[in-house]
Amino acid sequence: MTTEPLEFWFEFASTYSYPAAMRIESLAARAGVPVTWRPFLLGPIFQAQGWADSPFNLYPAKGRYMWRDLERLCEKHGLPYARPAIFPQRSILAARLALAAGREPWLPALVRGVYVANFAQAADIAAPATLARVLGALGQDAAAWLERAQSQPVKDALRAATEQAQARGIFGAPTFVARGELFWGGDRLEDALAWALRKA
Amino acid sequence: MTTEPLEFWFEFASTYSYPAAMRIESLAARAGVPVTWRPFLLGPIFQAQGWADSPFNLYPAKGRYMWRDLERLCEKHGLPYARPAIFPQRSILAARLALAAGREPWLPALVRGVYVANFAQAADIAAPATLARVLGALGQDAAAWLERAQSQPVKDALRAATEQAQARGIFGAPTFVARGELFWGGDRLEDALAWALRKA
Repeated sequence: MTTEPLEFWFEFASTYSYPAAMRIESLAARAGVPVTWRPFLLGPIFQAQGWADSPFNLYPAKGRYMWRDLERLCEKHGLPYARPAIFPQRSILAARLALAAGREPWLPALVRGVYVANFAQAADIAAPATLARVLGALGQDAAAWLERAQSQPVKDALRAATEQAQARGIFGAPTFVARGELFWGGDRLEDALAWALRKA
Repeated sequence: MTTEPLEFWFEFASTYSYPAAMRIESLAARAGVPVTWRPFLLGPIFQAQGWADSPFNLYPAKGRYMWRDLERLCEKHGLPYARPAIFPQRSILAARLALAAGREPWLPALVRGVYVANFAQAADIAAPATLARVLGALGQDAAAWLERAQSQPVKDALRAATEQAQARGIFGAPTFVARGELFWGGDRLEDALAWALRKA
Protein backbone atom coordinates (compact mmCIF):
# COMPACT_ATOMS: atom_id res chain seq x y z
CA MET A 1 0.00 0.00 0.00
CA THR A 2 1.38 3.41 -0.93
CA THR A 3 0.82 6.56 1.11
CA GLU A 4 -1.64 9.01 -0.41
CA PRO A 5 0.01 12.29 -1.34
CA LEU A 6 -0.34 15.42 0.75
CA GLU A 7 -1.71 18.27 -1.37
CA PHE A 8 -0.03 21.59 -0.68
CA TRP A 9 -2.20 24.50 -1.83
CA PHE A 10 -0.16 27.69 -1.85
CA GLU A 11 -0.43 31.30 -3.05
CA PHE A 12 2.78 33.20 -3.76
CA ALA A 13 1.41 36.40 -2.20
CA SER A 14 0.53 34.62 1.06
CA THR A 15 2.85 35.38 3.96
CA TYR A 16 2.26 32.21 5.94
CA SER A 17 2.72 30.11 2.78
CA TYR A 18 6.38 31.17 2.81
CA PRO A 19 7.61 29.17 5.86
CA ALA A 20 5.35 26.28 4.79
CA ALA A 21 6.87 26.20 1.29
CA MET A 22 10.36 26.24 2.76
CA ARG A 23 9.68 23.41 5.21
CA ILE A 24 7.35 20.99 3.43
CA GLU A 25 9.71 19.10 1.11
CA SER A 26 12.13 17.93 3.80
CA LEU A 27 9.45 17.29 6.44
CA ALA A 28 7.34 15.25 4.02
CA ALA A 29 10.36 13.30 2.76
CA ARG A 30 11.31 12.41 6.33
CA ALA A 31 7.72 11.27 6.97
CA GLY A 32 7.64 9.31 3.70
CA VAL A 33 4.67 11.29 2.36
CA PRO A 34 4.69 12.42 -1.30
CA VAL A 35 3.67 16.04 -1.91
CA THR A 36 1.47 17.39 -4.69
CA TRP A 37 2.23 21.09 -5.24
CA ARG A 38 -0.97 23.03 -5.99
CA PRO A 39 -0.50 26.70 -6.86
CA PHE A 40 -3.72 28.75 -6.84
CA LEU A 41 -4.93 32.33 -6.43
CA LEU A 42 -6.54 33.58 -3.24
CA GLY A 43 -7.73 36.86 -4.78
CA PRO A 44 -10.91 35.46 -6.40
CA ILE A 45 -11.71 33.50 -3.21
CA PHE A 46 -11.28 36.60 -1.03
CA GLN A 47 -13.41 38.60 -3.48
CA ALA A 48 -16.19 36.02 -3.21
CA GLN A 49 -16.10 36.63 0.58
CA GLY A 50 -16.44 40.36 0.00
CA TRP A 51 -12.78 41.27 0.55
CA ALA A 52 -11.18 43.53 -2.05
CA ASP A 53 -7.78 43.28 -0.34
CA SER A 54 -5.88 40.95 2.00
CA PRO A 55 -7.58 40.68 5.42
CA PHE A 56 -4.18 41.65 6.86
CA ASN A 57 -4.61 45.04 5.18
CA LEU A 58 -8.36 45.29 5.86
CA TYR A 59 -7.92 44.55 9.60
CA PRO A 60 -4.87 46.51 10.79
CA ALA A 61 -4.55 44.85 14.24
CA LYS A 62 -4.46 41.45 12.55
CA GLY A 63 -1.96 42.73 9.99
CA ARG A 64 0.40 44.19 12.60
CA TYR A 65 0.31 40.92 14.49
CA MET A 66 0.92 38.82 11.36
CA TRP A 67 4.09 40.69 10.35
CA ARG A 68 5.62 40.27 13.79
CA ASP A 69 4.49 36.64 13.96
CA LEU A 70 5.99 35.91 10.53
CA GLU A 71 9.29 37.46 11.61
CA ARG A 72 9.34 35.23 14.72
CA LEU A 73 8.43 32.14 12.69
CA CYS A 74 11.24 32.78 10.21
CA GLU A 75 13.66 33.17 13.11
CA LYS A 76 12.39 29.94 14.67
CA HIS A 77 12.82 27.97 11.44
CA GLY A 78 16.09 29.65 10.42
CA LEU A 79 14.61 31.29 7.31
CA PRO A 80 15.74 34.60 5.82
CA TYR A 81 13.20 37.38 6.13
CA ALA A 82 12.78 41.00 5.07
CA ARG A 83 9.36 42.58 5.12
CA PRO A 84 8.29 43.27 1.52
CA ALA A 85 7.45 46.86 0.59
CA ILE A 86 4.41 45.74 -1.43
CA PHE A 87 1.79 43.46 0.08
CA PRO A 88 0.09 41.53 -1.30
CA GLN A 89 2.17 41.17 -4.46
CA ARG A 90 0.60 40.30 -7.81
CA SER A 91 1.25 36.57 -7.92
CA ILE A 92 -0.53 35.50 -11.10
CA LEU A 93 2.55 35.15 -13.32
CA ALA A 94 4.47 33.22 -10.65
CA ALA A 95 1.47 30.92 -10.11
CA ARG A 96 1.20 30.28 -13.85
CA LEU A 97 4.92 29.51 -13.97
CA ALA A 98 4.60 27.02 -11.11
CA LEU A 99 1.74 25.33 -12.94
CA ALA A 100 3.69 25.27 -16.22
CA ALA A 101 6.62 23.62 -14.41
CA GLY A 102 4.35 21.30 -12.42
CA ARG A 103 6.02 18.09 -13.58
CA GLU A 104 9.63 19.27 -13.34
CA PRO A 105 11.88 17.86 -10.60
CA TRP A 106 13.05 21.42 -9.81
CA LEU A 107 9.50 22.72 -9.10
CA PRO A 108 9.94 22.78 -5.28
CA ALA A 109 13.19 24.74 -5.69
CA LEU A 110 11.44 27.16 -8.06
CA VAL A 111 8.63 27.70 -5.55
CA ARG A 112 11.11 28.32 -2.74
CA GLY A 113 13.07 30.72 -4.94
CA VAL A 114 9.97 32.81 -5.66
CA TYR A 115 9.02 32.92 -1.96
CA VAL A 116 12.54 33.98 -0.96
CA ALA A 117 12.39 36.70 -3.63
CA ASN A 118 9.11 37.94 -2.13
CA PHE A 119 9.76 37.62 1.61
CA ALA A 120 13.53 37.86 1.99
CA GLN A 121 14.80 39.85 -0.99
CA ALA A 122 12.06 42.49 -1.34
CA ALA A 123 11.87 41.63 -5.04
CA ASP A 124 8.85 42.25 -7.25
CA ILE A 125 7.59 38.76 -8.09
CA ALA A 126 5.19 40.18 -10.70
CA ALA A 127 8.24 41.21 -12.76
CA PRO A 128 9.33 38.65 -15.39
CA ALA A 129 12.96 39.64 -14.62
CA THR A 130 12.60 38.37 -11.03
CA LEU A 131 11.19 35.04 -12.18
CA ALA A 132 13.84 34.82 -14.91
CA ARG A 133 16.54 35.22 -12.25
CA VAL A 134 15.03 32.39 -10.16
CA LEU A 135 14.77 30.15 -13.23
CA GLY A 136 18.32 31.02 -14.25
CA ALA A 137 19.66 30.05 -10.83
CA LEU A 138 18.10 26.61 -11.43
CA GLY A 139 19.82 26.34 -14.81
CA GLN A 140 16.57 26.65 -16.73
CA ASP A 141 15.76 28.50 -19.96
CA ALA A 142 13.90 31.46 -18.46
CA ALA A 143 12.46 32.85 -21.70
CA ALA A 144 11.02 29.49 -22.73
CA TRP A 145 9.42 28.83 -19.33
CA LEU A 146 7.96 32.34 -19.06
CA GLU A 147 6.46 31.93 -22.50
CA ARG A 148 4.95 28.59 -21.51
CA ALA A 149 3.61 30.21 -18.31
CA GLN A 150 1.64 32.69 -20.43
CA SER A 151 0.12 30.08 -22.77
CA GLN A 152 -3.65 29.65 -22.85
CA PRO A 153 -3.68 26.07 -21.45
CA VAL A 154 -1.67 27.20 -18.40
CA LYS A 155 -3.91 30.25 -17.87
CA ASP A 156 -6.95 27.95 -18.04
CA ALA A 157 -5.33 25.47 -15.67
CA LEU A 158 -4.73 28.17 -13.05
CA ARG A 159 -8.32 29.34 -13.30
CA ALA A 160 -9.47 25.72 -12.91
CA ALA A 161 -7.15 25.16 -9.91
CA THR A 162 -8.55 28.23 -8.16
CA GLU A 163 -12.12 27.08 -8.83
CA GLN A 164 -11.22 23.62 -7.53
CA ALA A 165 -9.75 25.13 -4.36
CA GLN A 166 -12.94 27.07 -3.76
CA ALA A 167 -15.10 24.00 -4.46
CA ARG A 168 -13.04 22.02 -1.91
CA GLY A 169 -13.79 24.65 0.76
CA ILE A 170 -10.33 26.24 0.73
CA PHE A 171 -10.53 29.83 2.03
CA GLY A 172 -6.91 30.68 2.85
CA ALA A 173 -3.32 29.66 2.28
CA PRO A 174 -1.42 27.58 2.90
CA THR A 175 -3.91 24.72 3.00
CA PHE A 176 -2.89 21.09 3.15
CA VAL A 177 -5.25 18.31 2.06
CA ALA A 178 -4.60 14.88 3.53
CA ARG A 179 -6.95 12.00 2.75
CA GLY A 180 -9.73 14.47 1.93
CA GLU A 181 -9.30 16.55 5.11
CA LEU A 182 -8.34 20.24 5.01
CA PHE A 183 -5.63 21.61 7.28
CA TRP A 184 -5.33 25.39 7.13
CA GLY A 185 -2.20 27.30 8.14
CA GLY A 186 1.49 26.51 8.17
CA ASP A 187 1.21 25.51 11.84
CA ARG A 188 -0.92 22.53 10.74
CA LEU A 189 1.75 21.00 8.49
CA GLU A 190 2.83 18.41 11.05
CA ASP A 191 -0.80 17.48 11.82
CA ALA A 192 -1.53 17.12 8.10
CA LEU A 193 1.45 14.82 7.61
CA ALA A 194 0.35 12.70 10.56
CA TRP A 195 -3.14 12.53 9.05
CA ALA A 196 -1.74 11.40 5.67
CA LEU A 197 -0.01 8.50 7.46
CA ARG A 198 -3.12 7.38 9.41
CA LYS A 199 -4.49 3.98 8.56
CA ALA A 200 -7.63 4.39 6.44
CA MET B 1 15.10 36.29 38.91
CA THR B 2 11.53 35.14 38.57
CA THR B 3 9.88 34.28 35.28
CA GLU B 4 7.40 36.86 34.03
CA PRO B 5 3.87 35.49 33.90
CA LEU B 6 2.21 34.42 30.68
CA GLU B 7 -1.05 36.31 30.19
CA PHE B 8 -3.86 34.13 28.87
CA TRP B 9 -6.60 36.22 27.26
CA PHE B 10 -9.67 34.09 26.70
CA GLU B 11 -13.32 34.49 25.70
CA PHE B 12 -15.81 31.83 26.83
CA ALA B 13 -17.62 31.88 23.48
CA SER B 14 -14.39 31.27 21.54
CA THR B 15 -14.02 27.77 20.15
CA TYR B 16 -10.23 27.69 19.97
CA SER B 17 -9.99 29.06 23.51
CA TYR B 18 -11.45 25.76 24.72
CA PRO B 19 -8.46 23.46 24.04
CA ALA B 20 -6.12 26.26 25.15
CA ALA B 21 -7.95 26.66 28.47
CA MET B 22 -7.81 22.92 29.05
CA ARG B 23 -4.09 22.63 28.30
CA ILE B 24 -2.50 25.80 29.67
CA GLU B 25 -2.31 25.12 33.40
CA SER B 26 -0.38 21.85 33.17
CA LEU B 27 1.84 22.95 30.27
CA ALA B 28 2.76 26.20 32.02
CA ALA B 29 3.40 24.44 35.33
CA ARG B 30 5.72 21.98 33.59
CA ALA B 31 7.56 24.91 31.98
CA GLY B 32 7.69 26.79 35.28
CA VAL B 33 5.79 29.79 33.90
CA PRO B 34 3.07 31.42 36.05
CA VAL B 35 -0.20 32.16 34.23
CA THR B 36 -2.37 35.28 34.56
CA TRP B 37 -5.94 34.45 33.53
CA ARG B 38 -7.49 37.36 31.61
CA PRO B 39 -11.15 36.95 30.68
CA PHE B 40 -12.44 39.49 28.15
CA LEU B 41 -15.16 39.91 25.53
CA LEU B 42 -14.49 39.60 21.83
CA GLY B 43 -17.88 41.00 20.78
CA PRO B 44 -16.97 44.70 21.15
CA ILE B 45 -13.63 44.07 19.38
CA PHE B 46 -15.34 42.28 16.48
CA GLN B 47 -17.92 45.07 16.27
CA ALA B 48 -15.12 47.65 16.01
CA GLN B 49 -13.85 45.66 12.99
CA GLY B 50 -17.31 45.81 11.42
CA TRP B 51 -18.40 42.28 12.32
CA ALA B 52 -21.83 41.86 13.90
CA ASP B 53 -21.31 38.11 14.38
CA SER B 54 -18.47 35.62 14.70
CA PRO B 55 -16.33 35.45 11.54
CA PHE B 56 -17.01 31.70 11.63
CA ASN B 57 -20.67 32.50 11.00
CA LEU B 58 -19.99 35.37 8.60
CA TYR B 59 -17.64 33.26 6.44
CA PRO B 60 -19.23 29.81 6.06
CA ALA B 61 -16.19 28.05 4.50
CA LYS B 62 -14.07 29.18 7.43
CA GLY B 63 -16.76 28.12 9.87
CA ARG B 64 -17.16 24.63 8.37
CA TYR B 65 -13.41 24.18 8.55
CA MET B 66 -13.17 25.42 12.14
CA TRP B 67 -15.76 22.96 13.47
CA ARG B 68 -13.98 20.01 11.89
CA ASP B 69 -10.59 21.32 13.01
CA LEU B 70 -11.82 21.78 16.58
CA GLU B 71 -13.13 18.21 16.61
CA ARG B 72 -9.74 16.91 15.44
CA LEU B 73 -7.89 19.07 18.00
CA CYS B 74 -10.05 17.76 20.84
CA GLU B 75 -9.38 14.20 19.67
CA LYS B 76 -5.63 14.92 19.50
CA HIS B 77 -5.54 16.35 23.03
CA GLY B 78 -7.97 13.83 24.52
CA LEU B 79 -10.66 16.44 25.29
CA PRO B 80 -14.40 15.78 25.33
CA TYR B 81 -16.27 17.49 22.53
CA ALA B 82 -19.85 17.96 21.34
CA ARG B 83 -20.68 20.72 18.91
CA PRO B 84 -22.83 23.32 20.70
CA ALA B 85 -26.25 24.07 19.24
CA ILE B 86 -25.80 27.82 19.82
CA PHE B 87 -22.71 29.61 18.55
CA PRO B 88 -21.45 32.00 19.70
CA GLN B 89 -22.95 31.77 23.18
CA ARG B 90 -23.56 34.85 25.30
CA SER B 91 -20.48 34.79 27.51
CA ILE B 92 -20.78 38.00 29.52
CA LEU B 93 -22.01 36.44 32.78
CA ALA B 94 -19.36 33.73 32.68
CA ALA B 95 -16.66 36.32 31.97
CA ARG B 96 -17.84 38.45 34.90
CA LEU B 97 -17.80 35.38 37.12
CA ALA B 98 -14.22 34.56 36.09
CA LEU B 99 -13.22 38.13 36.89
CA ALA B 100 -15.00 38.03 40.26
CA ALA B 101 -13.15 34.81 41.11
CA GLY B 102 -9.86 36.08 39.71
CA ARG B 103 -7.87 35.56 42.90
CA GLU B 104 -9.32 32.18 43.87
CA PRO B 105 -7.15 29.07 43.62
CA TRP B 106 -10.02 27.27 41.88
CA LEU B 107 -10.28 29.84 39.06
CA PRO B 108 -8.57 27.59 36.43
CA ALA B 109 -10.95 24.74 37.33
CA LEU B 110 -13.93 27.13 37.05
CA VAL B 111 -12.78 28.28 33.61
CA ARG B 112 -12.34 24.69 32.43
CA GLY B 113 -15.76 23.78 33.82
CA VAL B 114 -17.45 26.57 31.85
CA TYR B 115 -15.63 25.58 28.64
CA VAL B 116 -16.60 21.93 29.06
CA ALA B 117 -20.22 23.03 29.63
CA ASN B 118 -20.08 25.00 26.35
CA PHE B 119 -18.11 22.66 24.09
CA ALA B 120 -18.71 19.19 25.50
CA GLN B 121 -22.04 19.30 27.32
CA ALA B 122 -24.09 21.52 24.99
CA ALA B 123 -25.08 23.59 28.03
CA ASP B 124 -26.22 27.21 27.90
CA ILE B 125 -23.40 29.13 29.60
CA ALA B 126 -25.52 32.29 29.68
CA ALA B 127 -27.84 30.55 32.14
CA PRO B 128 -27.04 31.16 35.82
CA ALA B 129 -28.07 27.55 36.49
CA THR B 130 -25.21 26.25 34.33
CA LEU B 131 -22.67 28.42 36.12
CA ALA B 132 -24.17 27.47 39.49
CA ARG B 133 -23.66 23.81 38.62
CA VAL B 134 -19.99 24.41 37.76
CA LEU B 135 -19.47 26.41 40.97
CA GLY B 136 -21.24 23.73 42.98
CA ALA B 137 -18.96 21.03 41.58
CA LEU B 138 -16.05 23.06 42.97
CA GLY B 139 -17.68 23.24 46.40
CA GLN B 140 -18.39 26.96 46.09
CA ASP B 141 -21.40 29.01 47.18
CA ALA B 142 -22.98 29.53 43.75
CA ALA B 143 -25.51 32.20 44.78
CA ALA B 144 -22.87 34.34 46.48
CA TRP B 145 -20.44 34.16 43.55
CA LEU B 146 -23.12 34.87 40.95
CA GLU B 147 -24.20 37.91 42.94
CA ARG B 148 -20.60 39.13 43.11
CA ALA B 149 -20.27 38.54 39.35
CA GLN B 150 -23.13 40.99 38.76
CA SER B 151 -21.76 43.74 40.99
CA GLN B 152 -20.84 47.08 39.47
CA PRO B 153 -17.09 46.87 40.15
CA VAL B 154 -16.93 43.53 38.35
CA LYS B 155 -18.96 44.85 35.41
CA ASP B 156 -16.59 47.82 35.19
CA ALA B 157 -13.56 45.55 35.43
CA LEU B 158 -14.74 43.44 32.49
CA ARG B 159 -15.32 46.54 30.38
CA ALA B 160 -11.83 47.76 31.32
CA ALA B 161 -10.28 44.37 30.49
CA THR B 162 -11.88 44.37 27.05
CA GLU B 163 -10.67 47.92 26.40
CA GLN B 164 -7.20 46.91 27.56
CA ALA B 165 -7.21 43.91 25.21
CA GLN B 166 -8.12 46.16 22.31
CA ALA B 167 -5.46 48.73 23.27
CA ARG B 168 -2.86 45.95 23.34
CA GLY B 169 -3.75 44.98 19.78
CA ILE B 170 -5.66 41.82 20.67
CA PHE B 171 -8.11 40.94 17.88
CA GLY B 172 -9.01 37.31 18.59
CA ALA B 173 -8.95 34.58 21.20
CA PRO B 174 -7.13 32.89 22.65
CA THR B 175 -4.24 35.32 22.80
CA PHE B 176 -1.17 34.80 24.94
CA VAL B 177 1.07 37.69 25.96
CA ALA B 178 4.66 36.82 26.87
CA ARG B 179 7.13 39.58 27.72
CA GLY B 180 5.02 42.10 25.78
CA GLU B 181 4.65 39.93 22.66
CA LEU B 182 1.27 38.72 21.39
CA PHE B 183 0.76 35.10 20.36
CA TRP B 184 -2.63 34.47 18.77
CA GLY B 185 -4.27 31.06 18.60
CA GLY B 186 -4.12 27.94 20.71
CA ASP B 187 -1.47 26.51 18.40
CA ARG B 188 0.90 29.25 19.62
CA LEU B 189 0.76 28.20 23.29
CA GLU B 190 4.06 26.32 23.20
CA ASP B 191 5.78 29.20 21.35
CA ALA B 192 4.42 31.69 23.89
CA LEU B 193 5.73 29.60 26.80
CA ALA B 194 9.15 29.38 25.14
CA TRP B 195 9.09 33.17 24.69
CA ALA B 196 8.25 33.70 28.36
CA LEU B 197 11.35 31.68 29.27
CA ARG B 198 13.72 33.56 26.93
CA LYS B 199 16.45 35.56 28.53
CA ALA B 200 15.56 39.24 28.39
